[in-house]
Amino acid sequence: MHLPIILTGDRTTGPLHLGHYVGSLQARVRLQHTHDQYLLLADTQALTDNMGTPQKVSDNVLEVTFDYLAAGIDPRKSTIFVQSQIPELAELSMLLLNLVSVSRLERNPTIKAEIALRGFERDIPAGFLVYPVAQAADITAFKATLVPVGDDQLPMIEQTNELVRKFNTLVNKEVLVECKALLSQVTRLPGIDGNAIALGASPDEIKKAVKQMYTDCNHLRIDDPGEIDGNVVFSMLDAFEQDRVMLAELKAKYRRGGLGDGVLKRRLEDHLQELLAPIRERRQLFAADRQEVLAILKQGTDRARETAARTVGEVKRALGLNYFE
Amino acid sequence: MHLPIILTGDRTTGPLHLGHYVGSLQARVRLQHTHDQYLLLADTQALTDNMGTPQKVSDNVLEVTFDYLAAGIDPRKSTIFVQSQIPELAELSMLLLNLVSVSRLERNPTIKAEIALRGFERDIPAGFLVYPVAQAADITAFKATLVPVGDDQLPMIEQTNELVRKFNTLVNKEVLVECKALLSQVTRLPGIDGNAIALGASPDEIKKAVKQMYTDCNHLRIDDPGEIDGNVVFSMLDAFEQDRVMLAELKAKYRRGGLGDGVLKRRLEDHLQELLAPIRERRQLFAADRQEVLAILKQGTDRARETAARTVGEVKRALGLNYFE
Repeated sequence: MHLPIILTGDRTTGPLHLGHYVGSLQARVRLQHTHDQYLLLADTQALTDNMGTPQKVSDNVLEVTFDYLAAGIDPRKSTIFVQSQIPELAELSMLLLNLVSVSRLERNPTIKAEIALRGFERDIPAGFLVYPVAQAADITAFKATLVPVGDDQLPMIEQTNELVRKFNTLVNKEVLVECKALLSQVTRLPGIDGNAIALGASPDEIKKAVKQMYTDCNHLRIDDPGEIDGNVVFSMLDAFEQDRVMLAELKAKYRRGGLGDGVLKRRLEDHLQELLAPIRERRQLFAADRQEVLAILKQGTDRARETAARTVGEVKRALGLNYFE
Repeated sequence: MHLPIILTGDRTTGPLHLGHYVGSLQARVRLQHTHDQYLLLADTQALTDNMGTPQKVSDNVLEVTFDYLAAGIDPRKSTIFVQSQIPELAELSMLLLNLVSVSRLERNPTIKAEIALRGFERDIPAGFLVYPVAQAADITAFKATLVPVGDDQLPMIEQTNELVRKFNTLVNKEVLVECKALLSQVTRLPGIDGNAIALGASPDEIKKAVKQMYTDCNHLRIDDPGEIDGNVVFSMLDAFEQDRVMLAELKAKYRRGGLGDGVLKRRLEDHLQELLAPIRERRQLFAADRQEVLAILKQGTDRARETAARTVGEVKRALGLNYFE
């Protein structure tokens, strides 16, 4: 009866693209049949480093939902919900903040890397420094035991479990639940070239994106031997070519010389057009019915809020913050 | 019709004492007639440096409420509410955290002093570092324009107004309201001797506390000249002796010599017994009817939550986080 609980989701800073599809969406469509899957539209988390452009964040809540539904997420099987609409997540975040030191947060390798990446230095927004705690609140509020992550995000899981143990020890009760990383086995698409193809891209946009893909700059004539490593088109074929025998042959021929980029790109484009056509079609249908999608989101958010409120109720009760019960 | 809005309150770490009475409670009893006064029982703020002893914090919510009511706070005039029961305050805190940098928080003089005081050093809990932001959320959620503070807390007001300006500039709308410090003019009671007399202290406890009060350690015999400065009994008389002429005479006589500590202490004790007797009596009545007091708290909290929810609704709307409206 009780399926294992998964918490995953996306920051709502833009529509999803092919990289999301092979990196997470495909797996989620599978997992929703065997797991109790919560899909978080992380708008408040996105604000921690996009506070200057709040509309970008809020506008993309619906865009990402279109992508979810178009890719095959079934709202009867997965709970799609909006982070900002669940005040209990903020409550839990504020309480968990008391169980972690500033220096511990500053040592978080993911945060350190991201601070460097964004050039925040000492001007890091406080919301950004503490977002691993907010993430721990998201995970623990749903008592998720599985969190699909890349290996660069393992410190987040560790931070979450530290907080779980600290809280449970404090109240001397197993209120929160530890989680495990579900490491993704799928290929990461290379660079931004491949990733930049949105799930809702038009046939022309797909064609153009493939045309611009980097191959091997020394492969000037068809007869020249070509390089596979760092060749974006081959990396994309690794992800999308079902016929693995054919792919091995193509690679061998390319290395020897005698195989033109055009042939490869046409093959890749065919696969992408075929993959994205039905997704685009479904996406257009959902995008044309915003009210229906909002209703789906509302329903998921209500359901998620009930769960989160139950957990945060237990947390507050364990701390004695339940005066009116 | 619209009275100016005041936000004030207490961290719930213990029952209130004489120091609170002359430092703030007396003024609140007056202000409730001319102001729309919100009285915050700051249990979640108290947890930022008392997370190890949550029961101390939650137990004292009712204790402080007894003190409020016994001192003359009228729940029909003042809105007494519990911070942890208003999730919208946590929501607003989390949003405002994106508008302040970690280094700005670390520069806050009050926080710096308190970090040193508590010996936190680098192990400062994240919740403690960010509590000025939570305080800004408390103030702005009620659109309070007046916040009674000591001058050591002026940086808190400044931090709040910085956040107000940043937020309003960001959304290009006057959503939040700046506040002003209402500097208290009353005497601060000296040391812990005087402060340690709880509002609910028994006659014996009052007697004992006065007996133990420090006067002038060189004032050995009645005829010796005595020192007024640093003399706790005189500082207490400064706060509680209504007859200012008599007080001046007592001081003069004490300085010359010929006035014993016992006479002074009896006089002070009489004043304190007289002041605290009706407070203690009312406090006992309230403490005997916890259900009634809880109902008062619940009513105040519901009322406060409505106001906070309205403001946080405006905040979220201005950021575009109102998908389901």
